[in-house]
Amino acid sequence: MKFAVKLGAAAALIALPSLGLAQEADVTPPNQEIGFIFTTFMFLVAGFLVFWMAAGFAMLEAGLVRSKNVTMQLTKNIALFALAAIAYYVVGYNLMYPGDGWTISGVIGAFSMASLEPVGLAGAEPDLTYASVGSDFFFQLMFCATTASIVSGTLAERIKLWPFLFFVILLTAFIYPIQASWKWGGGFLDEAGFLDFAGSTVVHSVGGWAALAGALILGPRIGKYKEGRTIPFMGSNLPLATLGTFILWLGWFGFNGGSQLYMDTAGNVADISRIFANTNTAAAGGAVAALLLTQLLYKKVDLTMVLNGALAGLVSITAEPLTPTLGSATLIGAVGGVIVVFAVPFLDKLKIDDVVGAIPVHLMAGIWGTIAVVFTNGDASLATQLYSIVVVGAFVFVVSGILWFILKVTVGIRVSEEDEINGLDMAELGMEAYPEFSKG
Amino acid sequence: MKFAVKLGAAAALIALPSLGLAQEADVTPPNQEIGFIFTTFMFLVAGFLVFWMAAGFAMLEAGLVRSKNVTMQLTKNIALFALAAIAYYVVGYNLMYPGDGWTISGVIGAFSMASLEPVGLAGAEPDLTYASVGSDFFFQLMFCATTASIVSGTLAERIKLWPFLFFVILLTAFIYPIQASWKWGGGFLDEAGFLDFAGSTVVHSVGGWAALAGALILGPRIGKYKEGRTIPFMGSNLPLATLGTFILWLGWFGFNGGSQLYMDTAGNVADISRIFANTNTAAAGGAVAALLLTQLLYKKVDLTMVLNGALAGLVSITAEPLTPTLGSATLIGAVGGVIVVFAVPFLDKLKIDDVVGAIPVHLMAGIWGTIAVVFTNGDASLATQLYSIVVVGAFVFVVSGILWFILKVTVGIRVSEEDEINGLDMAELGMEAYPEFSKG
Amino acid sequence: MKFAVKLGAAAALIALPSLGLAQEADVTPPNQEIGFIFTTFMFLVAGFLVFWMAAGFAMLEAGLVRSKNVTMQLTKNIALFALAAIAYYVVGYNLMYPGDGWTISGVIGAFSMASLEPVGLAGAEPDLTYASVGSDFFFQLMFCATTASIVSGTLAERIKLWPFLFFVILLTAFIYPIQASWKWGGGFLDEAGFLDFAGSTVVHSVGGWAALAGALILGPRIGKYKEGRTIPFMGSNLPLATLGTFILWLGWFGFNGGSQLYMDTAGNVADISRIFANTNTAAAGGAVAALLLTQLLYKKVDLTMVLNGALAGLVSITAEPLTPTLGSATLIGAVGGVIVVFAVPFLDKLKIDDVVGAIPVHLMAGIWGTIAVVFTNGDASLATQLYSIVVVGAFVFVVSGILWFILKVTVGIRVSEEDEINGLDMAELGMEAYPEFSKG
Repeated sequence: MKFAVKLGAAAALIALPSLGLAQEADVTPPNQEIGFIFTTFMFLVAGFLVFWMAAGFAMLEAGLVRSKNVTMQLTKNIALFALAAIAYYVVGYNLMYPGDGWTISGVIGAFSMASLEPVGLAGAEPDLTYASVGSDFFFQLMFCATTASIVSGTLAERIKLWPFLFFVILLTAFIYPIQASWKWGGGFLDEAGFLDFAGSTVVHSVGGWAALAGALILGPRIGKYKEGRTIPFMGSNLPLATLGTFILWLGWFGFNGGSQLYMDTAGNVADISRIFANTNTAAAGGAVAALLLTQLLYKKVDLTMVLNGALAGLVSITAEPLTPTLGSATLIGAVGGVIVVFAVPFLDKLKIDDVVGAIPVHLMAGIWGTIAVVFTNGDASLATQLYSIVVVGAFVFVVSGILWFILKVTVGIRVSEEDEINGLDMAELGMEAYPEFSKG
Repeated sequence: MKFAVKLGAAAALIALPSLGLAQEADVTPPNQEIGFIFTTFMFLVAGFLVFWMAAGFAMLEAGLVRSKNVTMQLTKNIALFALAAIAYYVVGYNLMYPGDGWTISGVIGAFSMASLEPVGLAGAEPDLTYASVGSDFFFQLMFCATTASIVSGTLAERIKLWPFLFFVILLTAFIYPIQASWKWGGGFLDEAGFLDFAGSTVVHSVGGWAALAGALILGPRIGKYKEGRTIPFMGSNLPLATLGTFILWLGWFGFNGGSQLYMDTAGNVADISRIFANTNTAAAGGAVAALLLTQLLYKKVDLTMVLNGALAGLVSITAEPLTPTLGSATLIGAVGGVIVVFAVPFLDKLKIDDVVGAIPVHLMAGIWGTIAVVFTNGDASLATQLYSIVVVGAFVFVVSGILWFILKVTVGIRVSEEDEINGLDMAELGMEAYPEFSKG
Repeated sequence: MKFAVKLGAAAALIALPSLGLAQEADVTPPNQEIGFIFTTFMFLVAGFLVFWMAAGFAMLEAGLVRSKNVTMQLTKNIALFALAAIAYYVVGYNLMYPGDGWTISGVIGAFSMASLEPVGLAGAEPDLTYASVGSDFFFQLMFCATTASIVSGTLAERIKLWPFLFFVILLTAFIYPIQASWKWGGGFLDEAGFLDFAGSTVVHSVGGWAALAGALILGPRIGKYKEGRTIPFMGSNLPLATLGTFILWLGWFGFNGGSQLYMDTAGNVADISRIFANTNTAAAGGAVAALLLTQLLYKKVDLTMVLNGALAGLVSITAEPLTPTLGSATLIGAVGGVIVVFAVPFLDKLKIDDVVGAIPVHLMAGIWGTIAVVFTNGDASLATQLYSIVVVGAFVFVVSGILWFILKVTVGIRVSEEDEINGLDMAELGMEAYPEFSKG
């Protein structure tokens, strides 16, 4: 929503009489400056919450893989965040927000490294109607890194470390920023009227599409599908997975709340409050839906489904966390939870092996959330929402697929059968995650 | 303190001359609006910290139960939070803050679902002297959920999932909000002069009383008390329990700090600072007291006592984190730590089986903290504090007891002996928390 | 930077015309008050982030020791934080910020207990150009505690509990505050022009020097160095260590960002934004450097090196997180990561047994970061930076060494050989961290 909102706010400011500001400028910061401080600080707080989601993904995934692959999963998660941070700085940020610097208007932005305002804003003429560039960069970077975190879970337990990290660099430097510019950089999807407040499509489905392309080309883990049956591979540490889910839930307040992009007025901070409350209740709706549904379907509650239900609720509300009432938000989240409960076995039927359930959570609930905007936001058009889902999906799926394919036929993306059976930790890293607790 | 403070602040504002505001209203947000933004954002930050406490309870409890019950404990914790979120939205919030809508004056509030202000406050006339409804709802919801988290620890390792969750719904929809309205909704305890800043009684003792009633009706775990001796059941994962304690400590800054309810003036933010510093030092006092005392009594430091000592220090300072000096706050917390060290074996003598020590920490230290208000706040009356402790305690203990009893004689609340011995994870959920590390 | 900045800001304010404030004082908070609220709240947020680092150290260290010493490591970490909180309140805070109360001018400050402003600032004349005393105390306390956390990791698995805690009290009451006063209390190093923004030297190297002195006097763990070879002792729980690293990374935003000390203007909040972005990219640089270097050197990525690389990146940028560009910050962090990869085996060659790598991360990268200030801040003098590193290092190393030596020859600091082999958990505490998962 960034670009559109920015223009809107700027327009509103132009309409305001500017009397009274000048004469007090010497002794008091103008109120624009106060708004600037509010919004900037809000981005920093929201940004560190979204940063924290990187830890959430790491814990969730480390808890859901088998113990022989835990060190590898941790390594991938911290490495992908660090590489994403650098890739987004070097290429991604300015590619995503081209301003007037489009290479191909509304489709491909400009190539240049991100740079921050000078220390103390000395000599700069900051846009006091918004926030500092540094805070915006910090906040947006975390979104980009989230996309990569989504991919790592699906492809766990069988993908080689370095090809995966190479894909992450291309994802965070190019794929994510380019499609994000179409909406948040003011590109052609934004002009078409596409609404995606905090990124059900722009962030979550993108991670999901990239993961899906990878899962198809990589293939399932050895022994996962046998004689038409799906063999359950149990996560090695459910407290970690639960911790990861709580971390993600916490971080999501920043993810959705910060996407309001302004905290300079009573109306904006009240909106952020709505978003916090709606985000929370959508997660609750998703968790409760999975709780009830797994009890009904399987006669036993399934904790990992409840965790993924909460996450699916969060993804579902991400496209529009502002306009729904608490009741609508709860229902939108609950539908996300329902989707997860059905999509996880459905993927298994298709023999698409998604280790942590990232495709149901981020891609399928992301699509649902993007569609659900039309129920609560009168400005949304179902056709435009669907069109945008397809455009983004096609772009990310095709480009990711090509990349995964090239990686497969050149360096190879899958560890050897022996290494996979022995576990990636000893085979690729030579370091066990729980060396004293391993099974005989 | 909400209601009283709100009236106080409103009165103060009425007394202020309102000149000068009108003429600048077009170009600059009025200063009330700045205060509104400050307080609202403070609620959001404090609220996400208190949300984080839900993760703290989950980790603390998952670390202190035996590995065969860990999945169940995790399931209970995430499910209770999700259900509390919905119950508080549908019934609890407006029941707790009836405003003029008391059903029975000062005792039972109004029944209606919570609703947030319109997007952008459009057409609303927000109370700019306070904060947005959404932020207040978000913050208060987290307190309600905390109450339920307290109960789950005490009753771990033997209670059935669904009866427990059913109790949680009634606790968070009715029991907690009704008694909370007596103080924070401006009900009869508030009118009597009861002081409980952030809820040593209103939150923590309520969780403790509900847990105590449940523990008495549920009975101790099999094998816990044998031939007059208490058999120690060791927690399965002390790093998790320690992490949970640190999370709770962190969240408590929001719990107590946010209860100042205003951050619109230098005086209010300085008070919040006092509260942060006092909250921290009370936790330190509780931890150090337990550290020294277990060394003196048992010749060995007991980590779980130190963790509970810190938590008891936090509960103890919760009734009045503002007025104490740093020294008094440290001592108040230290007494909480001492209480825990003696209360844990005392409960065992009574054969009340409290798996994680929630009754000593939340109920006993909660009572102590409520009494301790009279030492540092001149407005407190010992008689009123005691009266309120008894009134709240009697209400929650009796109503909870009746509910637990009805649940016991109807659906049953306890798993079968065989299931308890085998562990709730496999028996009720069919999913181990650490499938690869289980003992042969 | 505290003292210097405070004076600077005060001077700037004196220069401002004060017209216009008085006439509005009745109806609107003066703008100084708004700045006061901003800065105070910023300290509280930054402070709780730095508090969270205590949990990060606890998890990092608990994950990197062997399972037989985990309970002890957790006990040390929560106990050291609690004791540091009390020691800093009773002695440290006022010793560190003597104002005009130097006992020996610029070298030793005043002895008195910290006290907070009165409730609601009633009757106080707060310095509205800065922040509340409570928030400043809260923030600074966390830095002091960090120093102690650093020491506990190096000396793990062999030091006795109580002598360690006794050292912590002296470190946090005297050693840290005295040397910190030299810079941040406006002492002789500050006057000499020493620059150390958030404490690469003042905090991190101090913890490192105290740890080094302890490690030399305590000696290596039994069996660590055998016949000229270093025997790897694997950490028992790498997800915990990774979680700890993510927690520290998160907390560091508060550590460095809060050290800006002001958030009352657009320039200050933009600077805090720069600091957040630079802190993040330095960590990323350190992690990527260790990732690549361990792959090149050992043909296998080493997760613990990547974690320590990220932490070294964070330490490296701490002396000057404001002035570097994103590129410089990434490089400064990357050099920190390189240092760690070489310093860890180097220390082992010297038979200095540092269990978690705290000396490479906090001392060596801390020295590097302090030197690196000269590359990006024109006000820095290499000679002064080196002089200050040496002065602080000599003071802390010598005083710590004397203390450790006295403790060694009086009460003894090392557990018995038998206890060390059996593990400190059962020997000293009688409580296992993972009682159900121990190896036969």
